Amino acid sequence: MKTQVAIIGGGPAGLLLSQLLHTRGIVSVVLERKTKEYVLGRIRAGVLEQGLVNLMEEAGCADRMHAEGFAHDGTLIAYGDEIFRVDFLEHTGTPVMVYGQTEVTRDLYEAREKAGGKIEFEVEDVVIQGANTDTPHVYYTVDGAARRLDCDFVAGCDGFHGVSRHSIPLEMRREYEKIYPFGWLGILSETPPVNRELIYANSSRGFALCSMRNDNLSRYYIQCSLSDSPSDWTDEAFWEELKRRIPKEQADRLITGPSIEKSIAPLRSFVTEPMRWGRMFLCGDAAHIVPPTGAKGLNTAASDVHYLYHALGDFYETGSEAGIATYSEKALKRVWKAERFSWWFSSLLHRYPDQSAFDLKMQVAELEFLRTNKAAQQAMAENYVGLPY
Amino acid sequence: MKTQVAIIGGGPAGLLLSQLLHTRGIVSVVLERKTKEYVLGRIRAGVLEQGLVNLMEEAGCADRMHAEGFAHDGTLIAYGDEIFRVDFLEHTGTPVMVYGQTEVTRDLYEAREKAGGKIEFEVEDVVIQGANTDTPHVYYTVDGAARRLDCDFVAGCDGFHGVSRHSIPLEMRREYEKIYPFGWLGILSETPPVNRELIYANSSRGFALCSMRNDNLSRYYIQCSLSDSPSDWTDEAFWEELKRRIPKEQADRLITGPSIEKSIAPLRSFVTEPMRWGRMFLCGDAAHIVPPTGAKGLNTAASDVHYLYHALGDFYETGSEAGIATYSEKALKRVWKAERFSWWFSSLLHRYPDQSAFDLKMQVAELEFLRTNKAAQQAMAENYVGLPY
Repeated sequence: MKTQVAIIGGGPAGLLLSQLLHTRGIVSVVLERKTKEYVLGRIRAGVLEQGLVNLMEEAGCADRMHAEGFAHDGTLIAYGDEIFRVDFLEHTGTPVMVYGQTEVTRDLYEAREKAGGKIEFEVEDVVIQGANTDTPHVYYTVDGAARRLDCDFVAGCDGFHGVSRHSIPLEMRREYEKIYPFGWLGILSETPPVNRELIYANSSRGFALCSMRNDNLSRYYIQCSLSDSPSDWTDEAFWEELKRRIPKEQADRLITGPSIEKSIAPLRSFVTEPMRWGRMFLCGDAAHIVPPTGAKGLNTAASDVHYLYHALGDFYETGSEAGIATYSEKALKRVWKAERFSWWFSSLLHRYPDQSAFDLKMQVAELEFLRTNKAAQQAMAENYVGLPY
Repeated sequence: MKTQVAIIGGGPAGLLLSQLLHTRGIVSVVLERKTKEYVLGRIRAGVLEQGLVNLMEEAGCADRMHAEGFAHDGTLIAYGDEIFRVDFLEHTGTPVMVYGQTEVTRDLYEAREKAGGKIEFEVEDVVIQGANTDTPHVYYTVDGAARRLDCDFVAGCDGFHGVSRHSIPLEMRREYEKIYPFGWLGILSETPPVNRELIYANSSRGFALCSMRNDNLSRYYIQCSLSDSPSDWTDEAFWEELKRRIPKEQADRLITGPSIEKSIAPLRSFVTEPMRWGRMFLCGDAAHIVPPTGAKGLNTAASDVHYLYHALGDFYETGSEAGIATYSEKALKRVWKAERFSWWFSSLLHRYPDQSAFDLKMQVAELEFLRTNKAAQQAMAENYVGLPY
């Protein structure tokens, strides 16, 4: 089989890239390790930057998002007895869009299917070869049958554990990592959200986040120990702990119910450099991971896709290799900004096991500065709604 | 002997307080452990916030400062191959004043002497008693003779190692501290400054700062090991190392010369709470220390003096104890902001022995964000010129 762009990974990054390339007349094949149902069953973040909203529009996949998503003009931040709001609209003129990553993925699948896009599911044993030559090709098996996909380019959208990054020789890569000494225990429940906007809470018992998908689907998180497992936490224990970590007013009006999903995610900062190896490009989690505080994961994948689809579009339309040559540099420049923000926002809101009394005071002083200083709020808001591509 | 306010410590905080109280008709006695010459021989920072400039004016001691000091409208920050300027005037409408702490102290001594203010030098064995009663008094010896000073209030302006803080029972104090794993090696040289404004440099070899006192008196610092001693560094070695840490353009035009002072200072963040114990108030270094990055030491002492002289003025003029009762809370609120800024600015610019590759990337990302983001520069400038009292 032959295509223009082989896309490894059928998550939102791969699908969005495939669909955007399609709008520029470029043909791709998406190879996904799991089933479609599995991919759509993954619960991820649900706060989209305007840049991603724009890309969904460019991809022709924005109708349901605009109908069912919620524009959020600000967010609440709580600590000690204080709670304050950062107004995104006031500071940046831009809201964020609350719309689950699962829904984004579903919309993209629908669009790809409608356009007759080729997606292979349950592919195994993916091997990328010749990425650094003019004839890259991908070997894989489906249903036990070996296949070969010849292509002009490979887009590695296969996440942190995917094969793409590891196809770049180790000596060509420089990797940066920080592992945070805690996890997030998250639940999804069919209850009305406690608040119209998100609440990020730094409590003496640890971080908590009140988020949502829609008027009757709430997403809550609490910082937990890395040694915890979801089965250690009954729904009751989760709700009790959440109530202790958010302001009393919100705790009193929290509506609880049975969880329909419960899981623990570790927190990691990770970047690999460069993001291009010859004719292979890394996109999204394959190249970088952020801790979830601030919801930059999907959004940063989207900015990679933005740079890459323009680079490939320009190449096929004009023959220019400029976008390809500068992809890694441009993408990484924005990646490091998102890494900084996610690291800073995580540092601001979590309790760390090795925090000294002075460190705790610095955390409170920083929250206090953010609460009372317009310029600090402006800088935070610009990052939260998404820095320009 | 009897006075209204016994001021322990004849450094700039104690003298400024004494002089400001004098303007409101309140009598004080200053007790200083060293000689006047010794105090005036101490080399300290030289960047004054507008708030301190205003206090010097209120104290009637601003003439020489305005004649000989230099208003700085911005500062330069260098890292990697980048150098950028944060414009204080553009962001805050306010410059900072470059005028040595030694000169401030000299002007204050002159004013106190002119006004007939009582300053006892070379006092020993200071003991503060009854601070938590209506009859505080201070025992001390001068020239071997024991003295007793009765007073309404005690102002502890005797620095980090002074007796004032330690006169508060340990169980009434909560102390916060961070020791930084490096020091600053500083020299003073009778050479023209390399640049009209300060240059803060984050280099791969460690921090460097180009500062100055006047057109022919420069102050330079380099981050050094805590195990270094000034005698380990010849002038030549210092200049060579400084040149390696600042941008080439500046290094090429650096004019070197013999050092007239060379010393190493450790970096510490420290705060004690509360800053009042009955009728005793802590002011400046007696209550808090900041690392020197950003020059907040003297300026934060000045904001304490501001709150205290108004509190005491109101008490003597109207009998109101409101200012006295809220002194600690008000002073600490601003102290923690200065602590945060000094900690952040130090963290941004130094190399830490335990920094991971990821941590270094975060430092660069933060510098990059500051270089390119107006809101981040605004927040930095507001802190640098001094947050409102």
